[in-house]
Amino acid sequence: MSEQLATRLCNELTKLTLIDPHTHINPHAPASKTLADIMGYHYYTELAHSSGMPKSRIEEPGLDPKTKVERLVESLVHLDNTIQVSWLVELCQKFFGFDDDRITLENWESLYDRSAAKMSEPDWEDQCLKQSGIERIFLTNDFDDPLTGFDTHRYVPCLRTDDLVFHFTNPAVRERLTRATGIEPTSTTAIRQAIGKLFDHFTQSGARACAISLPPSFSPVAPGSPAELDSQFRSAFLEADSPSAGLGANFIFWTITEFCAEYKLPFDLMIGVNRRVYPSGVFQGQDLFDQRVSLIQYKSLLNAFPQVTFPISVLAQASNQELVSYSWIFPNVVTNAHWWYSNIPAYIELDTKARLQAVPRNKQIGYYSDMYKLEFGWPKFSMYRKCLARVLASDFVVGRGWSEEQALDFGRQVLRGNVETIFGV
Amino acid sequence: MSEQLATRLCNELTKLTLIDPHTHINPHAPASKTLADIMGYHYYTELAHSSGMPKSRIEEPGLDPKTKVERLVESLVHLDNTIQVSWLVELCQKFFGFDDDRITLENWESLYDRSAAKMSEPDWEDQCLKQSGIERIFLTNDFDDPLTGFDTHRYVPCLRTDDLVFHFTNPAVRERLTRATGIEPTSTTAIRQAIGKLFDHFTQSGARACAISLPPSFSPVAPGSPAELDSQFRSAFLEADSPSAGLGANFIFWTITEFCAEYKLPFDLMIGVNRRVYPSGVFQGQDLFDQRVSLIQYKSLLNAFPQVTFPISVLAQASNQELVSYSWIFPNVVTNAHWWYSNIPAYIELDTKARLQAVPRNKQIGYYSDMYKLEFGWPKFSMYRKCLARVLASDFVVGRGWSEEQALDFGRQVLRGNVETIFGV
Amino acid sequence: MSEQLATRLCNELTKLTLIDPHTHINPHAPASKTLADIMGYHYYTELAHSSGMPKSRIEEPGLDPKTKVERLVESLVHLDNTIQVSWLVELCQKFFGFDDDRITLENWESLYDRSAAKMSEPDWEDQCLKQSGIERIFLTNDFDDPLTGFDTHRYVPCLRTDDLVFHFTNPAVRERLTRATGIEPTSTTAIRQAIGKLFDHFTQSGARACAISLPPSFSPVAPGSPAELDSQFRSAFLEADSPSAGLGANFIFWTITEFCAEYKLPFDLMIGVNRRVYPSGVFQGQDLFDQRVSLIQYKSLLNAFPQVTFPISVLAQASNQELVSYSWIFPNVVTNAHWWYSNIPAYIELDTKARLQAVPRNKQIGYYSDMYKLEFGWPKFSMYRKCLARVLASDFVVGRGWSEEQALDFGRQVLRGNVETIFGV
Repeated sequence: MSEQLATRLCNELTKLTLIDPHTHINPHAPASKTLADIMGYHYYTELAHSSGMPKSRIEEPGLDPKTKVERLVESLVHLDNTIQVSWLVELCQKFFGFDDDRITLENWESLYDRSAAKMSEPDWEDQCLKQSGIERIFLTNDFDDPLTGFDTHRYVPCLRTDDLVFHFTNPAVRERLTRATGIEPTSTTAIRQAIGKLFDHFTQSGARACAISLPPSFSPVAPGSPAELDSQFRSAFLEADSPSAGLGANFIFWTITEFCAEYKLPFDLMIGVNRRVYPSGVFQGQDLFDQRVSLIQYKSLLNAFPQVTFPISVLAQASNQELVSYSWIFPNVVTNAHWWYSNIPAYIELDTKARLQAVPRNKQIGYYSDMYKLEFGWPKFSMYRKCLARVLASDFVVGRGWSEEQALDFGRQVLRGNVETIFGV
Repeated sequence: MSEQLATRLCNELTKLTLIDPHTHINPHAPASKTLADIMGYHYYTELAHSSGMPKSRIEEPGLDPKTKVERLVESLVHLDNTIQVSWLVELCQKFFGFDDDRITLENWESLYDRSAAKMSEPDWEDQCLKQSGIERIFLTNDFDDPLTGFDTHRYVPCLRTDDLVFHFTNPAVRERLTRATGIEPTSTTAIRQAIGKLFDHFTQSGARACAISLPPSFSPVAPGSPAELDSQFRSAFLEADSPSAGLGANFIFWTITEFCAEYKLPFDLMIGVNRRVYPSGVFQGQDLFDQRVSLIQYKSLLNAFPQVTFPISVLAQASNQELVSYSWIFPNVVTNAHWWYSNIPAYIELDTKARLQAVPRNKQIGYYSDMYKLEFGWPKFSMYRKCLARVLASDFVVGRGWSEEQALDFGRQVLRGNVETIFGV
Repeated sequence: MSEQLATRLCNELTKLTLIDPHTHINPHAPASKTLADIMGYHYYTELAHSSGMPKSRIEEPGLDPKTKVERLVESLVHLDNTIQVSWLVELCQKFFGFDDDRITLENWESLYDRSAAKMSEPDWEDQCLKQSGIERIFLTNDFDDPLTGFDTHRYVPCLRTDDLVFHFTNPAVRERLTRATGIEPTSTTAIRQAIGKLFDHFTQSGARACAISLPPSFSPVAPGSPAELDSQFRSAFLEADSPSAGLGANFIFWTITEFCAEYKLPFDLMIGVNRRVYPSGVFQGQDLFDQRVSLIQYKSLLNAFPQVTFPISVLAQASNQELVSYSWIFPNVVTNAHWWYSNIPAYIELDTKARLQAVPRNKQIGYYSDMYKLEFGWPKFSMYRKCLARVLASDFVVGRGWSEEQALDFGRQVLRGNVETIFGV
């Protein structure tokens, strides 16, 4: 009964065309060309490595796409249980006419060829988006991205600020900033001017958000006076290992937030990642986390910027209750999707239950795909819709006597409506 | 099947008359007079504010009750998903003949008038309690409450000690203590004597518990010698920002616990709240928490006072497993209900499962309402009963083959029986 | 439907004969002789004590077995809800023809006598294992165990290293090491040689794993040079309260891990226990935990020993997501069962969902019994199988369209196959 109800709700929600509010799509090459692009997603390389395949076999220099796929397929026998591999199988079924339930050493090659043919069709990008029910896609652009040569209506720019905040001591980053803005960041004033130029450029190109991922130890506070910071400029901004390096990162983060206020951009905070915990891991398969983190670390920030909306993603599932509670109290905190290690149905369903039950309905962004290639929009949103439909069915229709239409309205708001109102698209 | 079974169990449990072991009821004005009293509950004002309404519109000085309700009703369109608003709708349906499923700008006014008429009936307090199935209610009294002018059988006094422990450095608190006891608290001996007088007064008035809410950082230990503390009396007891202020708070807390032992009062510990995290929030809508807290912080206390029962409530859902485990090991630890940010069905159900499966059945207090006005007893206990019934159905009747009567006996013990044995009522 | 499906899967999984990869069985007395051996399990004594029985009644010196059981049965009226007491009832039903659903003061004595008769049969050990569907059992041997006088094929030795790492400052431990190896551990070189002898001995006797339980504060790092450590040998290795004691523990732990690499033994890490939190508790009923722990504390270790497999158990349920995520990234991390305070269905089911959805299927050890007496293998694995079958039914057969046979294959791999491949048995 409740299972059928959930399926019915899910089918209705699938008819809604979506805006994907956070991805890593390259707008100059948004879709895949071969299965190697698809299976090169870090989920498959890192899981293959974790299950026993040496990194050297996966990342062998000069490996041709087809051999790479063959090697990764070898590992799938250990990985078919994972939800990540279910995304792969589902997208192959959806887009490439694959009709087995496992990709194996027996059937991969015909799939490879058939999918390559499909992806080589000139309108594959459009076909894929249409079939996926997605019409607009937020990017995550480097701060020095020229933002030219693509349709910024379809691919909405978003200013990613990790490099500025956490790698400013790296001379290459400062050079990129100078090149992008014409300003040498040799004082707090110059840094502020340069960042202002970036905001000018990004908002003129249609940017709708600023974003950053943050380590569990980060806890921003109002910075000291510019004069004070300038007096220790070298140790605060130029030396990675200096004890004052945190002051520089804090100043840049705070300054970016000030510009978010000025330019009315929401600031996506993605809280909790420790980078390079496993430095011998495959590309993008090295980061993990420490569950000992609290949103109380953002108390100063949230109070100082009531006019900035902070869509917050948390990496540790243990943080979800804080996210729910801070969103229920702070007008400027919004729950933002299910990120990375929390992006599996077991946690999505628990977290969705709490959010739907306790956060104002206009403050919940249900989901983003976080994808690098367009083909993943479909299976990832599909996974989320199933979880969402189950919670709507059990907790609202069955549990609270809502009509199916009331539940669907709520589902649609969480899936799309709030993306429109919160990011102003 | 299991859904019908849960409903059947819930209906049976609803027949049981309850004792509510923790509320903030004012016994001189226990029931509401208008919908403004009901919707003035911080859950509605803080959620309205969080969803976008300026604090100034909600807390405008001199606002008449009807206009206040109209304004809050405006926000309900963003809040109807929350379990807190479901309490509101359910109590209006139960008590005021409301038969819509949403309170809107179209229907609120007639509800306002009809409910005001009902609440103006001279026996409304009795009617409300009777319909709610609640016969006795624990209060949370200020330490200087005279405890006169109300029926202490129906409204059981309980000594709230937050002010003494955490605001003793505030001269107004010390003056209140002097006024209440005739003792000037100018030494550790005098403080102890004054607190002893409070215990005399409270227990003579029928108090059945002592209570306190505690920040995540608190970790009580046996205090140093009185002489030592007296030698630094000023910094420990009189200066809020002194580095020794924690010594004073610790001494007073420990002394209170000693009196709980002497007077055989259970000491309700409500662990984990950070006050004024969002100081610009509405009244009572400013507190949040830090999930990084552990019951290991109470190791010294729990070992030092085996003769004191500690009903423990935790604010962070992450603390529930510790609460279950500490209750399973320590004879003097009892699980106490589902508090505040953990008081939503998603968390109640998870937490109830673990408690029912692993804590001795005589050591679980299922629920308290924490209410400020009597009308909330019904919908809050109703929410809990549904969760409890679902867990009894799935984990005990279906999962372990218990008879329905065995499951109901367990449910009744958790709902009422343990309140009687633990608090001696 | 899904309930019947889960039952069907569970019945099939029950046909599989198991290897139990972690127990505290004494191979010289593996089975119980009376119900006092069974009810002497710390779960029953600690829960009886927690529910109100004085320790002195439970641990009275010279108490005869039958009186001890009678006393513990008195407490069961408060404990029949606990999953631990359900193990007791189920094993009595399975092995001793008990056909009531509660053990009471009315029926315990005939059960006692009937079970004693059964357990006195000369082949009770074999009968019990056969009925339980378990054929091999890992032990947890003291480092100075001679490992003689028992069938090491059935009872697989495992080197427990807690004493070496955490009690080396205790002279009795060092004397045991000298006696076992003929080496006086008076320098880092001698310690290393002695530990090497233990590994020789254990692996020659068929040991398949090394194991240790670790406090939440532990965070191993590569030790300093031997010369450096030798220069502060006294404070690092001989003085329990010295500030350098951690250096000694760290050195021994790291050295043991080096030998795990050399001897190709998996190293079971059981992370998170605080010992003697309630020192007045009954025997083995004194330990608890602090949920504030992270696997990031093991970053150095996991990176330094890619060739060592670490089956990791976590005590705090809050740690499960980290365990899932670290297993998904690190090739040498394997999820290991559901330990102690996390070993209740409420948490097993949540944790199993996340593991089955996100960890490579060849890296999950589903369960170990952790038992002290053989009779507990049946009910504990039975509890786990029910949880596992429910997750396979809901998340894989219903949720992802797997065939029942595919789900059962996965279940069998998690229950047994991975024990074989990971420990090489």
